[in-house]
Amino acid sequence: MTTAKPLFNRLALIGTGLIGGSIARAVRTQGAARSIVATSRSAETRKRVAELGFADQVVESNTAAVEGADLVIVSIPVGACGAVAEEIGPHLKPGAIVSDVGSVKGSVLRDMAPHVPAGVHFIPAHPVAGTEHSGPDSGFAELFVNRWCILTPPENADQAAVEKLKSFWIALGANVETMSAEHHDMVLGITSHLPHLIAYTIVGTADELGAVTRSEVLKFSAGGFRDFTRIAASDPTMWRDVFLYNKDAVLEMLGRFNEDLSQLTRAIRSGNGDALFDHFTRTRAIRRGIVEIGQDSAAPDFGRAHPTLPTEPLPRPYAADNE
Amino acid sequence: MTTAKPLFNRLALIGTGLIGGSIARAVRTQGAARSIVATSRSAETRKRVAELGFADQVVESNTAAVEGADLVIVSIPVGACGAVAEEIGPHLKPGAIVSDVGSVKGSVLRDMAPHVPAGVHFIPAHPVAGTEHSGPDSGFAELFVNRWCILTPPENADQAAVEKLKSFWIALGANVETMSAEHHDMVLGITSHLPHLIAYTIVGTADELGAVTRSEVLKFSAGGFRDFTRIAASDPTMWRDVFLYNKDAVLEMLGRFNEDLSQLTRAIRSGNGDALFDHFTRTRAIRRGIVEIGQDSAAPDFGRAHPTLPTEPLPRPYAADNE
Repeated sequence: MTTAKPLFNRLALIGTGLIGGSIARAVRTQGAARSIVATSRSAETRKRVAELGFADQVVESNTAAVEGADLVIVSIPVGACGAVAEEIGPHLKPGAIVSDVGSVKGSVLRDMAPHVPAGVHFIPAHPVAGTEHSGPDSGFAELFVNRWCILTPPENADQAAVEKLKSFWIALGANVETMSAEHHDMVLGITSHLPHLIAYTIVGTADELGAVTRSEVLKFSAGGFRDFTRIAASDPTMWRDVFLYNKDAVLEMLGRFNEDLSQLTRAIRSGNGDALFDHFTRTRAIRRGIVEIGQDSAAPDFGRAHPTLPTEPLPRPYAADNE
Repeated sequence: MTTAKPLFNRLALIGTGLIGGSIARAVRTQGAARSIVATSRSAETRKRVAELGFADQVVESNTAAVEGADLVIVSIPVGACGAVAEEIGPHLKPGAIVSDVGSVKGSVLRDMAPHVPAGVHFIPAHPVAGTEHSGPDSGFAELFVNRWCILTPPENADQAAVEKLKSFWIALGANVETMSAEHHDMVLGITSHLPHLIAYTIVGTADELGAVTRSEVLKFSAGGFRDFTRIAASDPTMWRDVFLYNKDAVLEMLGRFNEDLSQLTRAIRSGNGDALFDHFTRTRAIRRGIVEIGQDSAAPDFGRAHPTLPTEPLPRPYAADNE
């Protein structure tokens, strides 16, 4: 627990899943806000949040949550952001900052901005962090450490408010970068949305093959497939909205991907080993770059634990001939 | 170190990379063979293997390695297996078992079998295990624990020899399954080869976008992309050969994948959120299946380590208003 002064008096969290719940835990650990009020659409989730105790107060409505808050963070699927902004708009405290954590920024800007009254600072944000788990139990305080949080402030944004939100994310352990919403959506289109679409596709393909059983797919998944299943286990509602709301960038990236896949397919079909070798050598370098800047582990296999060898003598019906 | 009797007197390893080097380390830990002789095509690798000391003897040629060995395991790219079989064939000890670890089994059977003399047992094998690292330093004794090793014995294989090789892999911690080479190549086509092809493709696509810099791709890779880069960092020679030698099954799986990708693309283009949601819910279940049978970690993010939050008070230029 740091002894630094809180950045905000009252943080309101609308949405308490993996991201909202991690923000709450990190804010508390870092003392970044004096108090946290949280709400969620579902009564069951609100009950669980109260049990988990990561907020000081759990309230039943979005409007009650934002009352008197000087920072409001909306952590819900991007498709629901516009309606929530419309609902909370009239209840926002003058001078407050309203932000979000959505994976698409163009649509959030378009759908939320019109409902944020003058005198309230709207600064969309996207912490590029997560796991395949979701719900209030899945969050943890360290989720944002050494990850990047991208801010996409509107052109007329108040600079002091932007700096304050930046300090908030830095307090949670993140690095912060600012860019336009349009550029964000293209960057994330390739680093996040297309990979998810591909992973969702291939996992579905494997499940539908008549000639290979599901049991075989699961058993032999260590050959590479299991890595894709992690991504394809991400929250379905969140990802449905990402694809619907970042359609143009996703389709653009998908077009590029399809061209490259056709090229590699042709190399396989024509037996062009040199083209394959050159491509595979190039992609290896990118991995090194990611490990070097600390965005992934250098340990093999993501540092997955490998169980130890059996120490009990195993049955050996066929011992060596001459002993 | 187990006290069980060794299964083989003399194990010859041709190839000492990730798989060959892991076999040697595991065999020694488990006492599965009395002595290990190893060789590698490159003098530099042989020197390194001698330094690492995971073999009892390092020799300069394949023919010297197999002399007197009762188990020979060829751990090299599948494209090189035929020539090595031709070279060692006349030097194999009668009654010995010859095996391999290749990711393609149809081509290995076709290319190696004709060179294995009568009285020597040829039993192709494929331990479905690995990491993105390669070379003699990358191996470790636990690599095969709780992974599957697939044997694809020819129809006329000696059952006792098959059982003995099975015991060998069980001693190294693996589960063993037997199937035809043809079926193996289809199963691995979907669980390993297609995932690698897709990962190699998307990592290349990301690297060639003019509008998104390489620095941005690396920084924001935690949104999903970094998972693909691990697979796309696998050994280029090995994977070139996999695609050249399992061409038919890979192209077949690729065709299925492309159909499914077109369907999801159409759902995105037409804004069919229900179709996306249903698909994403289905794929989530597959992940659960893999975790349940112990083929991956239940920990979020593959159990990747998350660094702790900064404990030093961070600069907070914009503290809460009323303190």
